[in-house]
Amino acid sequence: MTAQTATGKQPLVSGEDYINSLRGRKLKVYLFGELVEDTVEHPMIRPSINAVAETYDLAMREPELASATSHLTGERVNRFLNIAMTRDDVVLQNKMQRRLGQLTGTCFQRCVGMDALNSLYSTTFEIDANYQTDYHGRLKNFITEVQTQNLVIGGAMTDVKGDRSLAPSMQADPDLFVHVVERTDAGVYVSGAKAHQTGCLNSHWLIVMPTMRLTENDKEYAIVGAIPVDAEGITYIYGRQSCDTRSMEGGSIDVGNANFGGQEAMVILENVFIPNDLIFMDGETEFASMLVERFTCYHRRSYVCKSGVGDVLIGAAAQIAEYNGVENVSHIKDKLVEMTHLNETIYATGIASSYQSKPTASGAYQNDDMIANVCKHHVTKMPYEIGRLAQDLAGGLVVTMPSEKDYRSEAVGHLLEKYLKGRADVSTENRMRILRLIENMTLGRNAVGYLTESMHGAGSPQAQRIQIARGMQIEFKKQLAKELAGIEERKREQLTSEISDYFGRVFDTEI
Amino acid sequence: MTAQTATGKQPLVSGEDYINSLRGRKLKVYLFGELVEDTVEHPMIRPSINAVAETYDLAMREPELASATSHLTGERVNRFLNIAMTRDDVVLQNKMQRRLGQLTGTCFQRCVGMDALNSLYSTTFEIDANYQTDYHGRLKNFITEVQTQNLVIGGAMTDVKGDRSLAPSMQADPDLFVHVVERTDAGVYVSGAKAHQTGCLNSHWLIVMPTMRLTENDKEYAIVGAIPVDAEGITYIYGRQSCDTRSMEGGSIDVGNANFGGQEAMVILENVFIPNDLIFMDGETEFASMLVERFTCYHRRSYVCKSGVGDVLIGAAAQIAEYNGVENVSHIKDKLVEMTHLNETIYATGIASSYQSKPTASGAYQNDDMIANVCKHHVTKMPYEIGRLAQDLAGGLVVTMPSEKDYRSEAVGHLLEKYLKGRADVSTENRMRILRLIENMTLGRNAVGYLTESMHGAGSPQAQRIQIARGMQIEFKKQLAKELAGIEERKREQLTSEISDYFGRVFDTEI
Amino acid sequence: MTAQTATGKQPLVSGEDYINSLRGRKLKVYLFGELVEDTVEHPMIRPSINAVAETYDLAMREPELASATSHLTGERVNRFLNIAMTRDDVVLQNKMQRRLGQLTGTCFQRCVGMDALNSLYSTTFEIDANYQTDYHGRLKNFITEVQTQNLVIGGAMTDVKGDRSLAPSMQADPDLFVHVVERTDAGVYVSGAKAHQTGCLNSHWLIVMPTMRLTENDKEYAIVGAIPVDAEGITYIYGRQSCDTRSMEGGSIDVGNANFGGQEAMVILENVFIPNDLIFMDGETEFASMLVERFTCYHRRSYVCKSGVGDVLIGAAAQIAEYNGVENVSHIKDKLVEMTHLNETIYATGIASSYQSKPTASGAYQNDDMIANVCKHHVTKMPYEIGRLAQDLAGGLVVTMPSEKDYRSEAVGHLLEKYLKGRADVSTENRMRILRLIENMTLGRNAVGYLTESMHGAGSPQAQRIQIARGMQIEFKKQLAKELAGIEERKREQLTSEISDYFGRVFDTEI
Amino acid sequence: MTAQTATGKQPLVSGEDYINSLRGRKLKVYLFGELVEDTVEHPMIRPSINAVAETYDLAMREPELASATSHLTGERVNRFLNIAMTRDDVVLQNKMQRRLGQLTGTCFQRCVGMDALNSLYSTTFEIDANYQTDYHGRLKNFITEVQTQNLVIGGAMTDVKGDRSLAPSMQADPDLFVHVVERTDAGVYVSGAKAHQTGCLNSHWLIVMPTMRLTENDKEYAIVGAIPVDAEGITYIYGRQSCDTRSMEGGSIDVGNANFGGQEAMVILENVFIPNDLIFMDGETEFASMLVERFTCYHRRSYVCKSGVGDVLIGAAAQIAEYNGVENVSHIKDKLVEMTHLNETIYATGIASSYQSKPTASGAYQNDDMIANVCKHHVTKMPYEIGRLAQDLAGGLVVTMPSEKDYRSEAVGHLLEKYLKGRADVSTENRMRILRLIENMTLGRNAVGYLTESMHGAGSPQAQRIQIARGMQIEFKKQLAKELAGIEERKREQLTSEISDYFGRVFDTEI
Repeated sequence: MTAQTATGKQPLVSGEDYINSLRGRKLKVYLFGELVEDTVEHPMIRPSINAVAETYDLAMREPELASATSHLTGERVNRFLNIAMTRDDVVLQNKMQRRLGQLTGTCFQRCVGMDALNSLYSTTFEIDANYQTDYHGRLKNFITEVQTQNLVIGGAMTDVKGDRSLAPSMQADPDLFVHVVERTDAGVYVSGAKAHQTGCLNSHWLIVMPTMRLTENDKEYAIVGAIPVDAEGITYIYGRQSCDTRSMEGGSIDVGNANFGGQEAMVILENVFIPNDLIFMDGETEFASMLVERFTCYHRRSYVCKSGVGDVLIGAAAQIAEYNGVENVSHIKDKLVEMTHLNETIYATGIASSYQSKPTASGAYQNDDMIANVCKHHVTKMPYEIGRLAQDLAGGLVVTMPSEKDYRSEAVGHLLEKYLKGRADVSTENRMRILRLIENMTLGRNAVGYLTESMHGAGSPQAQRIQIARGMQIEFKKQLAKELAGIEERKREQLTSEISDYFGRVFDTEI
Repeated sequence: MTAQTATGKQPLVSGEDYINSLRGRKLKVYLFGELVEDTVEHPMIRPSINAVAETYDLAMREPELASATSHLTGERVNRFLNIAMTRDDVVLQNKMQRRLGQLTGTCFQRCVGMDALNSLYSTTFEIDANYQTDYHGRLKNFITEVQTQNLVIGGAMTDVKGDRSLAPSMQADPDLFVHVVERTDAGVYVSGAKAHQTGCLNSHWLIVMPTMRLTENDKEYAIVGAIPVDAEGITYIYGRQSCDTRSMEGGSIDVGNANFGGQEAMVILENVFIPNDLIFMDGETEFASMLVERFTCYHRRSYVCKSGVGDVLIGAAAQIAEYNGVENVSHIKDKLVEMTHLNETIYATGIASSYQSKPTASGAYQNDDMIANVCKHHVTKMPYEIGRLAQDLAGGLVVTMPSEKDYRSEAVGHLLEKYLKGRADVSTENRMRILRLIENMTLGRNAVGYLTESMHGAGSPQAQRIQIARGMQIEFKKQLAKELAGIEERKREQLTSEISDYFGRVFDTEI
Repeated sequence: MTAQTATGKQPLVSGEDYINSLRGRKLKVYLFGELVEDTVEHPMIRPSINAVAETYDLAMREPELASATSHLTGERVNRFLNIAMTRDDVVLQNKMQRRLGQLTGTCFQRCVGMDALNSLYSTTFEIDANYQTDYHGRLKNFITEVQTQNLVIGGAMTDVKGDRSLAPSMQADPDLFVHVVERTDAGVYVSGAKAHQTGCLNSHWLIVMPTMRLTENDKEYAIVGAIPVDAEGITYIYGRQSCDTRSMEGGSIDVGNANFGGQEAMVILENVFIPNDLIFMDGETEFASMLVERFTCYHRRSYVCKSGVGDVLIGAAAQIAEYNGVENVSHIKDKLVEMTHLNETIYATGIASSYQSKPTASGAYQNDDMIANVCKHHVTKMPYEIGRLAQDLAGGLVVTMPSEKDYRSEAVGHLLEKYLKGRADVSTENRMRILRLIENMTLGRNAVGYLTESMHGAGSPQAQRIQIARGMQIEFKKQLAKELAGIEERKREQLTSEISDYFGRVFDTEI
Repeated sequence: MTAQTATGKQPLVSGEDYINSLRGRKLKVYLFGELVEDTVEHPMIRPSINAVAETYDLAMREPELASATSHLTGERVNRFLNIAMTRDDVVLQNKMQRRLGQLTGTCFQRCVGMDALNSLYSTTFEIDANYQTDYHGRLKNFITEVQTQNLVIGGAMTDVKGDRSLAPSMQADPDLFVHVVERTDAGVYVSGAKAHQTGCLNSHWLIVMPTMRLTENDKEYAIVGAIPVDAEGITYIYGRQSCDTRSMEGGSIDVGNANFGGQEAMVILENVFIPNDLIFMDGETEFASMLVERFTCYHRRSYVCKSGVGDVLIGAAAQIAEYNGVENVSHIKDKLVEMTHLNETIYATGIASSYQSKPTASGAYQNDDMIANVCKHHVTKMPYEIGRLAQDLAGGLVVTMPSEKDYRSEAVGHLLEKYLKGRADVSTENRMRILRLIENMTLGRNAVGYLTESMHGAGSPQAQRIQIARGMQIEFKKQLAKELAGIEERKREQLTSEISDYFGRVFDTEI
């Protein structure tokens, strides 16, 4: 086990420990066509590191919320590294996610890893049961290690995909999906690329996973394994975000949210080695879809984090209304209610999905798939509407306000101080700060996370509709209608006995 | 205690027992200007009785779902009569409600009583604590009795209200809100009227409650008590529903849902006596709002029943699409997905509210108010959209189809058989039956329950918005925004310590 | 020409003349399995006749709006019979439609005939040009005659269709689409059935038309001709509407809108004769789609009538708010604004479509297809939302109010007078009347026209989406995007020269 | 008259002429705290100049669309400078606006000036009629001059406003609204500031106007006059836009739309002189609201330009779907239909408003106010939804794609070429270009214009709702409802005679 290669031997505790653990790594990260010397101190990257650091600090400040007792070690571990062995564990993930959304106002990048570990946990158990393999044991060792060291895990799933109408093995270029390119006694070598990888640079380990259902012909693509982030053969190309360079201008107003930001990068793997004890699937193509579906099921309700981010945006909208002197106008209040109504819908559907969790064969709990999809599907729309309403309350200045440098300048700073004044008792600077925060969340860096990632992360809207269609048990519902329309008279006992799948969870009374 | 006056001494068990218990009562019920001789056999009333009877039969067939162990008697009792002493009890109410919605396709009329008993349970406990009164003990006796006899309780809350800008005691006519008109040593006499009382005729007892916050001047209006449905002095005037008289035409097609229907009537009280041991509040005006708020909080999430009714309508829409031969067309499938997405949102928000229940001082659990309001607010819109989509899938015939009598007639029956034919292998009659069910649920008798009652029951939309505004903790959210905008730097510990009220429930880890 | 068979020889002028013209006809109309003796005096049918009569009276009262100068006769004729030879003629149809919606609150049943005459006018011209046939001349004679006599024309288009996956000639039963069953020197005989025919009984003539695109094999289905409503071989089976029998209860409150209603019936044709001079298409299958598309194009923007009906419902909602004493509450006012915003969108898109009319080869003007589809597509949603908001403002009483007979009864009338009282200065009866009108328009007889017919009339929602897809010129738009993205640099002159079809109308400057 | 101070004496013809006319002016423009040397060549400013230049070139290429015959000079002039003296003139403004939206994909900045000239034209006429002043004659001279020289007019309306609960004269700082600070025989001196002034730097003249209704006490604020953009005493502070600095990075991909952009700046006036012959209102406070309302009425329907911008975004979304190989997937096609449906609603409501124009006393035509507000109100929502759908079709790469510099770099360019490849036959660069265009329009520089300006320009959403409330003639609609409910029977003739205001325009038959 090689986790030590990525970090020092002392377990990390605080956010500061975590930040220090990232220093001195020799990552090949490109940004604007150039190699980044020091990712930790790069002004465009640092806010994303701070967001991850907050997951450490919260675990210290609010351990009930952000840590859990590991069933593997019996010790208290960061909840992002914990396997959910009870329904409450699943629910508490959501609560922690909302809290971190509130505290950072952005994507804190750890849910993919958490959801990957959990879905792998139950899937490897079932592969082993089927094939007498040893993946589950390896995975437990790995989890134990990262729990003990308290590391950050990134989950690398989304391939670049090339021509979307072709399976991985049918692509003109075989590298468009990550696959095994060489095998030795010690392990395998993989090549390919993963697109828009959340928080990859800020992780210690990446877990490479397939991105979709696979066929018999795609065996070399059915590879799952853990790779240190600084492994030989990995190149990172940093993704651009709207307004990303504002953090390099100096100042703290125009960036909107100076401390926190998200991160997504392209990860390119060229003959990257995975030793046998870190391989968790290799060729069992028919289990790829189980893994993807379970991961997706967890991850779609992980978007409850956006209700925490939404809390910030609602607060910002209310604050600017107060600064503008219109907080008691009825349509303003009503818009804040509407924003809250939408925001709490995201939270409530996520919680309901987690609450309807059921144990898998491995003992790990899996949340409800139908409601997870309902939750995520709302997430693809409601933040956009909340954002639109926030812009409504902000007023046009949110997109026409002169720069912080103008405000700080001798030449025109006094003019802005005079003319950007709202209510006499409100500081012009504070008014600017809130406006820039709203800009940040609706057009700027965090709009990437709050809006577009809400659209596409964990699957684009149509993916949820397909999954809802799969789970909606339309035949059962037709029976209900035919019974009441007098078309088919069945014994009511029979109607009960037919309850299964989604409605089996709905009408489960053993809670 | 006089429950015997309303029913026989043998506890009711089956739906049939229940129906028999309604026979021979001397109710003064008016319909179309005339006294109804026998409500049980009246074709316009009977479907609503059948719907209540189903709550008995379900408790027999699925006791885990529809009965519960009473903390008062230790016996298994109908869940509608049970006081929820755990979070799971609250959640299971929702599951039972959805199931009954599926089985009846309409309003089964017992939620008001359940929610009234539960909210009274905790409120009387707190009145007693404050005033050393004995309401809670009386109420427990009453509940024990109705649990044992297995009776139906109706909750009579909504006054007719008169001029909505005036308090009860300020109305020109003092009777526009129910109030005490006379007091004796044995009890009180009340007069007034309650509008659109769900299932009142089908109950054994009515619990009269105030409808809104009261002031010091409204003491005589702060009266809560139990009254037998057949008490001296009560007049019922049956409410009209869309297409109500179709059930008197004979036949089983045009009614849409021949077996089940809802019921709402106006209840007029003229000097109706309530003995002391059945009085649960009398003059404690400041507790009226606690009672109303707790009742409303339960009741708004009780509208999860509509997701069960929605299951029927989605099934009917899918069935007609199949009969029309278009079930595989992509926009048809997508509309069924949309209907399901909306329908499950109602369910999920209800469940989340129940799940976030917390104990009151009495030990009874109260569900989350914010999410209950979010749930109900969706209920004021989503059934309308589901109904619209059902009409889309149904085709225009849903509103232009000739009558069942034409179909049964010698003169033109064969023409309809020939020309209303869809797919060759589908019976014309079955196609008509599904169309009439959809008409029933979107324009007819059950549209009353599925649509308009969804709008106004448990409070009209604006009532939820007001309640969301009260609970949305906008100051807390402003702090979040200011912190991230760099306006106020507070210790993060402090941010945690400020969590209270709604966010106290959200971030509660003791689950 | 046999128009005289349907009416007397004196031209009709007033609504009363029109009503008298319907008397004494020997129609075979079935309702509830029985032959209707006298359609004119039947209480369930009469309101629909009154609605048509209003089209006569309006032409007398507001001739500029509801009549036009015929280019065929040079005389002033009812606008419903006029061929639109200018853009203004097309626009004025919309204005008249909105006005009649306001005056009747329902479907006045004459748009199908107007749109049929207009689309046939230009289509027959083009058939003749192609085949040297004489349809256009015959049609002009027919139109001249009905203009002179001032008759009502119904357009019979929608076949019952059977299995929707099969073409007319492929159906198991050939009669599922209307087709020629026999030919003589004098004309043809047709059989089949037309579903939900608006105002058919209230017309003097029916124009039979095919319902969809036809293939070479469907020649016998490509028949268009005029048939007197009382022709030999026609059977009408009256369609049921929600709450239809209320008009047979006596009284004027519970019906909601006592004077006016819509009408739809199934029309069954058994060997019905059409003489040669009344045949306007016979076998020219490739022109069936031109006819259907032009008819649909006119008809989709004819749904501007619903903005007139919407005016009534908005007025009713405002009126009940006033009666309830809440007309100045901000959310009430805001909902009225929202209803108006939606309602005017229907009107404005209809007007814009009419305004972008262009002349056909025949000289008749055809409105813009894209915008007509946009208009109708809004009509499939907005009335439902307006209706939902009207129910919101109405309060629950709209669906639970006791019957008019109770209100008129000696037994309980005084109780209702007392307890249904709202503001002291408002009559209880008037409050009831407005509530019943809202019920009528959202659940009752006129909900059929205002909601479900808005959904399916002139094509269900998907039909508009298909037509929008056809017209949306996506390649042109891709060029615009590529040009701005720097992908293709084309001369801007070239971009102009590519404007055609829809954008040809948009950027047409010869207005 | 001093127009020569702003431009050379040769009338401008082409876009190039226009650009040259901007060179060498001595504007005091600040950006990032520094004085801008040359606005014409500044990479962040130039795209906005190009957008204005296109209004010249279009007038040359498509004179019917973008120029008009002036009633003042009888010569062909740019349509942005023309006074609309017919209904068609008003309609053609909309058509030109849509075309320019298509060609630039952004705000071309000239509508404010056009709408200002037109609203001033009719308002000055009515001031003169009331006060025997000479404003109208002065204005005609000014318009004649700018038409002849073919200059760009900016309209400076929106004051910075300070405390929104106080009238201009009540503000702590009197300069928070522009007002007269000194008077001489030759003219007046004004001070104050105008916020987010569209295209101000790119204009030759600014017309200063009051921003709201004024009271008797606000006389010094009721000032309207023309000022050369380079007048003594004006300071411009350039507004920041999302992603604004990308245009300073070099390259043409990451900017999204390299050629065109919008512009908004704060304009600060310190003792700026307006000579008498360029003053068009001075102290006539009661006419301020007429001016604002007429301007707003024109301007709200000027947002039809967004349907042209929407055409580009729809095209871009369709293009990326094609590049991704999914253009034939049904949900993709359906989303393009939805985008089109929304986009055409904006266009159609704008056209309908223009079409219902009526002449003012001056002879200039004014468009319909109700429908203009309906149009603009849709504009505050629909572009957001179109943008959301565009992001849906784009996929997540739209916000995570590495930079153009990475793509151009030797280090990783080949990796991006390989891994950003979609369909084999599509160039990676082109795929990147379309993605960046979509980013530009939904999050970047043009999202400012397409989204936030759509929200707030010409008045925020609530402003439209207030105006709709004013115009919705609710009393007339209540009459319609009462008539049909049987509450009031009025002669139908009377109902006609009551038609006025908005319905007067709707039912006007003199078209």
